[in-house]
Amino acid sequence: MDDVLAFVEQNAILFEEMLCELLRIPSISADPDRAADVRRAADWLAGQFASMGLSVRQIETCGHPLVYAETPGVPGQPVVLVYGHYDVQPVGSLDEWHSPPFEPTRRDGNVYARGATDDKGQMLTHVLSVLAWLRVRGRLPLQVKFLIEGEEEIGSRGLEELLKTEQGRKLLACDVVVVSDTSQYGPGQPAITYGLRGIAFFELVVRGPRQDLHSGTFGGTVANPIVALCQLLAAVKDAQGRVQLPGFYDAVRPLAPREEEQLARLPFSEEEYRAKLGVPALVGEAGYSTLLRRWARPTFDVHGIWGGEQVSKTVIPAWAGAKFSFRLVPDQDPEAIAQAAERFFRERCPPGVELKLRYGHGAPAVVVPLDSPWMAAAERAIAQGFGRPPVFIREGGSIPIVVHFRQQLAVDTLLLGWGLDDDRAHGPNEKLHLADFHRGIRASAYLWHE
Amino acid sequence: MDDVLAFVEQNAILFEEMLCELLRIPSISADPDRAADVRRAADWLAGQFASMGLSVRQIETCGHPLVYAETPGVPGQPVVLVYGHYDVQPVGSLDEWHSPPFEPTRRDGNVYARGATDDKGQMLTHVLSVLAWLRVRGRLPLQVKFLIEGEEEIGSRGLEELLKTEQGRKLLACDVVVVSDTSQYGPGQPAITYGLRGIAFFELVVRGPRQDLHSGTFGGTVANPIVALCQLLAAVKDAQGRVQLPGFYDAVRPLAPREEEQLARLPFSEEEYRAKLGVPALVGEAGYSTLLRRWARPTFDVHGIWGGEQVSKTVIPAWAGAKFSFRLVPDQDPEAIAQAAERFFRERCPPGVELKLRYGHGAPAVVVPLDSPWMAAAERAIAQGFGRPPVFIREGGSIPIVVHFRQQLAVDTLLLGWGLDDDRAHGPNEKLHLADFHRGIRASAYLWHE
Repeated sequence: MDDVLAFVEQNAILFEEMLCELLRIPSISADPDRAADVRRAADWLAGQFASMGLSVRQIETCGHPLVYAETPGVPGQPVVLVYGHYDVQPVGSLDEWHSPPFEPTRRDGNVYARGATDDKGQMLTHVLSVLAWLRVRGRLPLQVKFLIEGEEEIGSRGLEELLKTEQGRKLLACDVVVVSDTSQYGPGQPAITYGLRGIAFFELVVRGPRQDLHSGTFGGTVANPIVALCQLLAAVKDAQGRVQLPGFYDAVRPLAPREEEQLARLPFSEEEYRAKLGVPALVGEAGYSTLLRRWARPTFDVHGIWGGEQVSKTVIPAWAGAKFSFRLVPDQDPEAIAQAAERFFRERCPPGVELKLRYGHGAPAVVVPLDSPWMAAAERAIAQGFGRPPVFIREGGSIPIVVHFRQQLAVDTLLLGWGLDDDRAHGPNEKLHLADFHRGIRASAYLWHE
Repeated sequence: MDDVLAFVEQNAILFEEMLCELLRIPSISADPDRAADVRRAADWLAGQFASMGLSVRQIETCGHPLVYAETPGVPGQPVVLVYGHYDVQPVGSLDEWHSPPFEPTRRDGNVYARGATDDKGQMLTHVLSVLAWLRVRGRLPLQVKFLIEGEEEIGSRGLEELLKTEQGRKLLACDVVVVSDTSQYGPGQPAITYGLRGIAFFELVVRGPRQDLHSGTFGGTVANPIVALCQLLAAVKDAQGRVQLPGFYDAVRPLAPREEEQLARLPFSEEEYRAKLGVPALVGEAGYSTLLRRWARPTFDVHGIWGGEQVSKTVIPAWAGAKFSFRLVPDQDPEAIAQAAERFFRERCPPGVELKLRYGHGAPAVVVPLDSPWMAAAERAIAQGFGRPPVFIREGGSIPIVVHFRQQLAVDTLLLGWGLDDDRAHGPNEKLHLADFHRGIRASAYLWHE
């Protein structure tokens, strides 16, 4: 591998320049006024792939285009699909940025720009490692397919549509997917994210009187929809932090011994974590550590609640509502949770109000087996690229596309994160540590070898 | 009384014209652009009093003027203060009005206009009965003082300031206050409102993490402020509808036997009431009838709640808040309730969040003795004016000025309501039944006699 790595080393400055070129394109997918810029980013990528000699296609969707490229197939060798995205989040208030979001700026070994870590910088590491291989060796030891989308930040509709077609599944057929859009466990401690929680998302509306009533004139004679909603939501968890839906925990798969062992080995400071979040105390399900609560246990959280008046008007409101979700772990089924929730709330609906529970969306949890050859290859590649073996972690959130790859392509996804927790992916002053960018390119170059 | 009543009879059309004149003035106290109109209404009233030969003063306040007028004192006879207001509520959406709010329109025996019942029409009955007495007899059998304010709909600040001064209390000194700003018990069934509930109003804010957190990444490890708020609010009442604040019911004064008897005699249909409010069932404190729950029992209601996101964003919000109140009955003390609430919530504050309870405002309940000579006089006057004796009712809401009269002038207030429940006092198409307007003038004329 010395030849490929030497090329990567020698072209470090060029690679950073290429990253900055892409970062200069304000490809905000959520902003209709930026549609031309989003396309410009797709064109830039397609141009790179073409100049590398890859076979390239831009696939039109009802939204922003998908960029697809592939190296030649290698008989008897695996096919890897690299997934990433070239669109970025809106920038928010410019006042909070220390340098303009689309003028990539180097400070303290980082590059600051919208998209630096999410996902232009991380995604490019795989493009550049393939470039290095092709320049040095003329070919890769396996086939790499790239599918880089422009709608990740707005729901990936085009890609989901493609995956629903026979033709799309054929195009993207592979043995494993590689995604770099997550984080290391800490600075200098690379990680492979092998588990993601699922979700079941709901809206609950409680209705009482036909219209808002004066609480003086009518108070005491009718149920108050806000109070009823509070009673319902307060009943979901007991004092031990356990969800009270019947059967909620029945399908929860216990951790595998290797997972337990991996998690126990991770350095973790409860106090640092508490202080970072700014809470008076960490609180969760009795009998589990903070890391288990965060990654491996299902949860219940209310995301929004509303009803009545914020001014000092003494009404009994006609209705109140809330949005909430359960985070799920393997093998909980979102549909079964939705049915249990419907029964749970209906049985507890207090007299004097009516409720309507709407099941918004759901996705199962995903866990990638730790003992697959893909996982082993990624572990070795990262150990060599970063100079330190990765830890295996889970992530409490969902990455819906991983579920789609599992369901539509029947393959696992390797989540190899080069970013850092404090990269501020959706916030102001998003950054990527440049050393991690280069380590990511090296690890990716090793990956094709491994 | 035949001479006075004949005059009232003969001038019915003139009196309606005078009412319409006042209703044409858009004296919306809450609208700064209407300040000149508000003053025009004050001037119109002052003009009427002057033309009736009363001694008149317009008292300037930091807001809209107070109109004060008085008939000469009658040695050895009582002094009655008539309180009312010439300002009106905003009109809301004009689309909902069948005729313009400031073009009084007669339909089905009613006059439709903003302020028709609240309070121009009701208040004028007393002005016109005094006019009738003075025209026919040249003098009243007692002294009547009028204090008609222009800020009732925005908090009565000017009047409250006046009542705080020695001079103001001297000016308004009286034996009893008469207010017509409430409703009959039903069409053709006049009522004297002898009790008003008090109030203690609060805002509760619960804070968790320093900023909104992603519920995937962090869910399960920190307390959710919305859930904590729901738990706190759900704990205020038990399943029997009883408020759980320690000592909450200690000061509640039992109903007097005469009250019990009066309430038991009132016709009341639970089903009509339920259908009117459009609720699936009536709900309240166990062991009490709907009328008792409404008028004679304290309550707890949440008026507004907010926190997190209404969009489908899966956050753990940094905070959540709610506004709520307790309606109070004699002899509950709002300050004591505020202290009990503070202890109650603080003791129950779940780990992982911090709470702040703000006590907004409070007023004690008021009950006017049923066996006073004033009450007896009012009862006889209404029986003659309306042709049917009044029933004695309470009202679940507060009328703060009644508390101020009690506290500052040490007198009781007779709440003699000529309006109807469905007059839509603050809504579109406000109205007053013209027959009630004339019955109110007659009852008022009898009142000075009685």
